[in-house]
Amino acid sequence: MVNYPQGLKPRPSGNETTTKTTNFANRGMSFEAAINTTNRYYLTHGLAVIHKKPTPIQIVKVDYPKRSQAKIVEAYFRQASTTDYSGVYKGHYLDFEAKETRQKTGMPLKNFHDHQIKHMEQVLKQGGICFVLLHFTSLQETYLLLAADLIAFYVEPATRTKRSIPLDYIKKQGYFIKQAAFPQVPYLDIIEKLLGGDYDSKENDH
Amino acid sequence: MVNYPQGLKPRPSGNETTTKTTNFANRGMSFEAAINTTNRYYLTHGLAVIHKKPTPIQIVKVDYPKRSQAKIVEAYFRQASTTDYSGVYKGHYLDFEAKETRQKTGMPLKNFHDHQIKHMEQVLKQGGICFVLLHFTSLQETYLLLAADLIAFYVEPATRTKRSIPLDYIKKQGYFIKQAAFPQVPYLDIIEKLLGGDYDSKENDH
Repeated sequence: MVNYPQGLKPRPSGNETTTKTTNFANRGMSFEAAINTTNRYYLTHGLAVIHKKPTPIQIVKVDYPKRSQAKIVEAYFRQASTTDYSGVYKGHYLDFEAKETRQKTGMPLKNFHDHQIKHMEQVLKQGGICFVLLHFTSLQETYLLLAADLIAFYVEPATRTKRSIPLDYIKKQGYFIKQAAFPQVPYLDIIEKLLGGDYDSKENDH
Repeated sequence: MVNYPQGLKPRPSGNETTTKTTNFANRGMSFEAAINTTNRYYLTHGLAVIHKKPTPIQIVKVDYPKRSQAKIVEAYFRQASTTDYSGVYKGHYLDFEAKETRQKTGMPLKNFHDHQIKHMEQVLKQGGICFVLLHFTSLQETYLLLAADLIAFYVEPATRTKRSIPLDYIKKQGYFIKQAAFPQVPYLDIIEKLLGGDYDSKENDH
């Protein structure tokens, strides 16, 4: 008997070609690349305008060679003060961060910085839709956790000393995102249902 | 008689200290710096969460010296594919670009790129609030022009061949922003009125 790697087990044959390519990880794609591809899909289909912000760089020295473009010769990475992704969906402001881990029982809290949490609080206060997309590479599972639930965990004295947000908490408070082919991480499905009030009971989704 | 530089004419004395510092240009501040200061004001006062996107950089080579942080030793500036500023105001997605010119009769069109115009179209289609802030340094005047009116000018065959958007057009279609001390470029006042429908007749403001 063949031992298929997880997620690559043979599927029932069918005419739907999409069922053969439902997992981005199987195609050597990182979670971030899958999100970017998803956002491109949303953009080209007129469903949302979501962009990843450029990495903030502190530029120290730039050369201006004659007859060629400016060349940065000394620069350093800076820590992002906001989340990585933002944009607009049906007039709503969307703001999120995407993180992945190899751990199977939780998402390490070191993935989130104080100023990012503060930014999320500011966005929520201003009526924006804010969340994190959490991907567990070993489990091949992806969840959407609303910023309010991340912040609740982060600021709660009983839990903030923990090193990780337990997967159990994420499963209970968050929403499972079924990976698909197009788009690969269809997080807007969750947002659409949340906006429509279809998710009164989170229990329905697990 | 003293010849005061424009905008520095003596004001009627009074108790309002703010009236003495109403113009950012007089304090050697660039328009971009004034926008950033304005956004910080809005952020710290809980009025809006608007950030400037980092400059997109194409990183070619990074050194990883032992015991010190990664150092970028070769990188190039890339053209931004979106606008510079975005964020959330009362749940609404806000998206804008800020440009300044020394010209007195119009804003050179070369300040806007095709892909930025396309981005603005996408944002509008998705229900976002999109505009440009145009500052005329010589005139010390600032206008908010809605993206729809910029695009209309940009795509119109009769006007797209022009090198500049005439100040007359901007005055007629846009909204004058009265510079102030705190915040310096209070563009949200215009947005608030537009959202409230207070600006049915643009004529009222000029």
